[in-house]
Amino acid sequence: MSETATLVVSCPDRKGLVAALASLLHDHGANIREAQQHLDPVDRIFSQRIQFDLADLDLPRAQLEELLRIECGRYQMRWRISYSDRAKRVAIFVSRFEHCLYDLLIRHRLGELRCEIPLVISNHPELEPIATQFGVAWRVFPIDKQSKAAQEARELELLERERIDLVVLARYMQVLSAEFIARYPERIINIHHSTLPAFVGARPYHQAHERGVKLVGATAHYATSDLDQGPIIAQDVVACSHRDTVEDLVRKGRDVERMVLASAVRAHLDDRIVALGRRTVVF
Amino acid sequence: MSETATLVVSCPDRKGLVAALASLLHDHGANIREAQQHLDPVDRIFSQRIQFDLADLDLPRAQLEELLRIECGRYQMRWRISYSDRAKRVAIFVSRFEHCLYDLLIRHRLGELRCEIPLVISNHPELEPIATQFGVAWRVFPIDKQSKAAQEARELELLERERIDLVVLARYMQVLSAEFIARYPERIINIHHSTLPAFVGARPYHQAHERGVKLVGATAHYATSDLDQGPIIAQDVVACSHRDTVEDLVRKGRDVERMVLASAVRAHLDDRIVALGRRTVVF
Amino acid sequence: MSETATLVVSCPDRKGLVAALASLLHDHGANIREAQQHLDPVDRIFSQRIQFDLADLDLPRAQLEELLRIECGRYQMRWRISYSDRAKRVAIFVSRFEHCLYDLLIRHRLGELRCEIPLVISNHPELEPIATQFGVAWRVFPIDKQSKAAQEARELELLERERIDLVVLARYMQVLSAEFIARYPERIINIHHSTLPAFVGARPYHQAHERGVKLVGATAHYATSDLDQGPIIAQDVVACSHRDTVEDLVRKGRDVERMVLASAVRAHLDDRIVALGRRTVVF
Amino acid sequence: MSETATLVVSCPDRKGLVAALASLLHDHGANIREAQQHLDPVDRIFSQRIQFDLADLDLPRAQLEELLRIECGRYQMRWRISYSDRAKRVAIFVSRFEHCLYDLLIRHRLGELRCEIPLVISNHPELEPIATQFGVAWRVFPIDKQSKAAQEARELELLERERIDLVVLARYMQVLSAEFIARYPERIINIHHSTLPAFVGARPYHQAHERGVKLVGATAHYATSDLDQGPIIAQDVVACSHRDTVEDLVRKGRDVERMVLASAVRAHLDDRIVALGRRTVVF
Repeated sequence: MSETATLVVSCPDRKGLVAALASLLHDHGANIREAQQHLDPVDRIFSQRIQFDLADLDLPRAQLEELLRIECGRYQMRWRISYSDRAKRVAIFVSRFEHCLYDLLIRHRLGELRCEIPLVISNHPELEPIATQFGVAWRVFPIDKQSKAAQEARELELLERERIDLVVLARYMQVLSAEFIARYPERIINIHHSTLPAFVGARPYHQAHERGVKLVGATAHYATSDLDQGPIIAQDVVACSHRDTVEDLVRKGRDVERMVLASAVRAHLDDRIVALGRRTVVF
Repeated sequence: MSETATLVVSCPDRKGLVAALASLLHDHGANIREAQQHLDPVDRIFSQRIQFDLADLDLPRAQLEELLRIECGRYQMRWRISYSDRAKRVAIFVSRFEHCLYDLLIRHRLGELRCEIPLVISNHPELEPIATQFGVAWRVFPIDKQSKAAQEARELELLERERIDLVVLARYMQVLSAEFIARYPERIINIHHSTLPAFVGARPYHQAHERGVKLVGATAHYATSDLDQGPIIAQDVVACSHRDTVEDLVRKGRDVERMVLASAVRAHLDDRIVALGRRTVVF
Repeated sequence: MSETATLVVSCPDRKGLVAALASLLHDHGANIREAQQHLDPVDRIFSQRIQFDLADLDLPRAQLEELLRIECGRYQMRWRISYSDRAKRVAIFVSRFEHCLYDLLIRHRLGELRCEIPLVISNHPELEPIATQFGVAWRVFPIDKQSKAAQEARELELLERERIDLVVLARYMQVLSAEFIARYPERIINIHHSTLPAFVGARPYHQAHERGVKLVGATAHYATSDLDQGPIIAQDVVACSHRDTVEDLVRKGRDVERMVLASAVRAHLDDRIVALGRRTVVF
Repeated sequence: MSETATLVVSCPDRKGLVAALASLLHDHGANIREAQQHLDPVDRIFSQRIQFDLADLDLPRAQLEELLRIECGRYQMRWRISYSDRAKRVAIFVSRFEHCLYDLLIRHRLGELRCEIPLVISNHPELEPIATQFGVAWRVFPIDKQSKAAQEARELELLERERIDLVVLARYMQVLSAEFIARYPERIINIHHSTLPAFVGARPYHQAHERGVKLVGATAHYATSDLDQGPIIAQDVVACSHRDTVEDLVRKGRDVERMVLASAVRAHLDDRIVALGRRTVVF
């Protein structure tokens, strides 16, 4: 397979958007391999994802990007482009629960996730051996009220130095500050252990057990300064019953958390997500 | 197949419960066909469902019930017994959405629901032809603030006269009064069109669309005076995406509502449910 | 919402396909509302579905179709176009099981299926009242070995006279002849009560029970002359257990059959399906 | 929580079975915590699982077992008993695919599987580091036609020495001989990467892709001398579409394989399975 580029655009709907991009790409030798588009019926926002071959592109990438800048500017489009030969760099944040960390590292090793994972950050020391087993650098930043601002500053510096594109909160039990989140808009994915908006806040499995629900689930979303309110990327559930204790719900939930988080991370890495305010398009 | 009886008991856990009931039944010729029991780990409430053959029972049902009354009294057991040759009588309440009504009537016709359905009650006249097609009596009780108490009284009178065992609220868009509900404790099943506790209250599909969730669902629960808070019997979900408009969510939701409501009604008719406060055991 | 057209094309992959169609539509005032395309990685077949507004189209439909004929000819494209104001006409074939028939008629009544259903055909007389209740014409063609060819001829004549676009075999227990099927290529949808290729042939629920599987399901596919081998459109399953008798599997299966068949019919009516040999693209 | 015992029995149906066991246990101070029973409607085989507290048992375990031997003998019952303080010992067999191996070892570490895992056996050397990371002994037995009988003999000797109760074939790509299997009847669990009986044999994901199915899945079953025909314990599926290549099916399948295998192993370890010929009861 040759290398590909993925172009993702969004803007208020207008005629000629599709034709304009298709022509621009065609005129320069880009063969479109896969494309999806969506018109949000409420907000009238158009969004599109185009994946095309780079093999016969007749101009350098920088020039193509310059042409896209001009063309997208004409339509007030937000746009971004990525290339299959330039893997995104991911930092995983984790606290004491290891299942999501293991899951992402194993999937990466199996080739399921198109990215590099140069770094795991934690506020606790326990899980270091896991990062080490997979050959990933491990850094601990213990955090309490006093130290939070300073530690986050050091984390951000590290993320910058490592040129991190995506932060994955794999059961990281610290709330990030609004300032931190603002530095990685739509580039921090969190996993919450309930099907939001049900059981917002702490100890959702305990809440679920007390309420006697027949399903538990998980939600992956982009982190925003508004806790548990960010745009949802993926959700799933598993059936439960009176036979399940809280511990059983935690166990069943782990499987859903892993699946849902991995699915959201894959979608992000494959540039399938467009965040439109509180909602997402996942092509 | 011979006729069977189903005995459902619950009480604070104590030794010897299982042996006591098994011996009593065995001593009088009852062959146990199926049994499940559960010990709630939080409340230490024991519950059990026993289905047994009546073919070789060596005493009349009334005498068996008298023995059960004595035995269950010794253990402070709540108990109830039902017989496969005595079908429960069900009244369906409906407003203007027909999908759950149709679904229950068709399932009944196909033999999926062990019950009689002598009566459909509505606060609107539109769906009469459906009841008529299936040969079920149809009664309209229009309700507004002024008339509510009087109309509910007439409904209750009718339910009594028809010896109704179970009321099914099949998308009935009127809130029943606390007095009405108190007359049929754990015998009124409601379908709510969200996976409670998410999207409590009105227009859950609109709420779900606005929030951008990736799943919509439904919840069947026993009605209590606390709206949308009754013990949950069954829940399920269906995946949705950015491609789904509110109308699509409503459509997808209809399928889940039908399935979840039918499943809860079946469980009730088969005497599989024990309500323990806010939670249910569904054997 | 204004009226829309849906264009579906497929052909061996070649550069410029997307741009060519996008430009042609754009040049004549068609605003693309939704589009998906797919490149089959094995056969290198490109397929695309484009839905566009007709409101500002600057030429008559016939002329647009003529332009498409020319353009698609240049690329050896198979193509078809449909219009939202021209509903497809569907004939339902059924034998003695009513659940799929009921389901389609109710969904149609609820506005879920964009089509007309002018006709139900059966080889048995029993289900006539259902068609009648929904105001649909009912015709019986009893079939045995001797009469089969003649009866099918009469059925085909009737389908032609009624300008039927799609035949839905909603648990129709007669095998259609190869000649019949050849008259409606990729326009006959059948529901098989197993997840093909498991349990090909007769009595799949009995086979499933005997084999002790933990899932039963259903498959909707286009009918081909090769029985149970046509391109699959939709499949789903439901969990089962040792507690389920064959009758329970039949009951659970009915729900899956209804859902899967309706899903396939909707996809066909919305022109979302491209059949590529033994496989389908369902956009 | 005090320690518990789990008794599993099965036999041709007869009156008084339930009462006999309940009385025996009650008479010796065993409080029944959970019980399920099932009567197979085809074969008329009764089976039951009883979990009871050992805290107040008034006789030694060996004497209880002697009483059970006598009582079960009277009813021609097959029976087995296990104790929560005596963990089963599991050997994992694996070839070159690591996902199921990782999954079982992580679940074990998280406390999800009540067992010891003293041993991983492989016919290839590659996965040794994984066993080592989790502190589990690793043994390689390369196998070809000539060496098979001798190598299996050495494996069996090792299993015996390690007092292995359960063998888990976690994507072990060698067919075990009938002799090997006969040594561990209903104690070898295999994961097959299709929803049997679909796609029996080699390369099921390739078969599934070629056939164009819309679901792929996995089956956990007890190994028998009849390949892919053993009694099924657990199955599940995941949706797929035209967008999925064979590689995508393999990836999606890995998740289902892990879940289904873990679920079957848990059920076995918790003594929830009764194999009845080609079928299983999973309480």
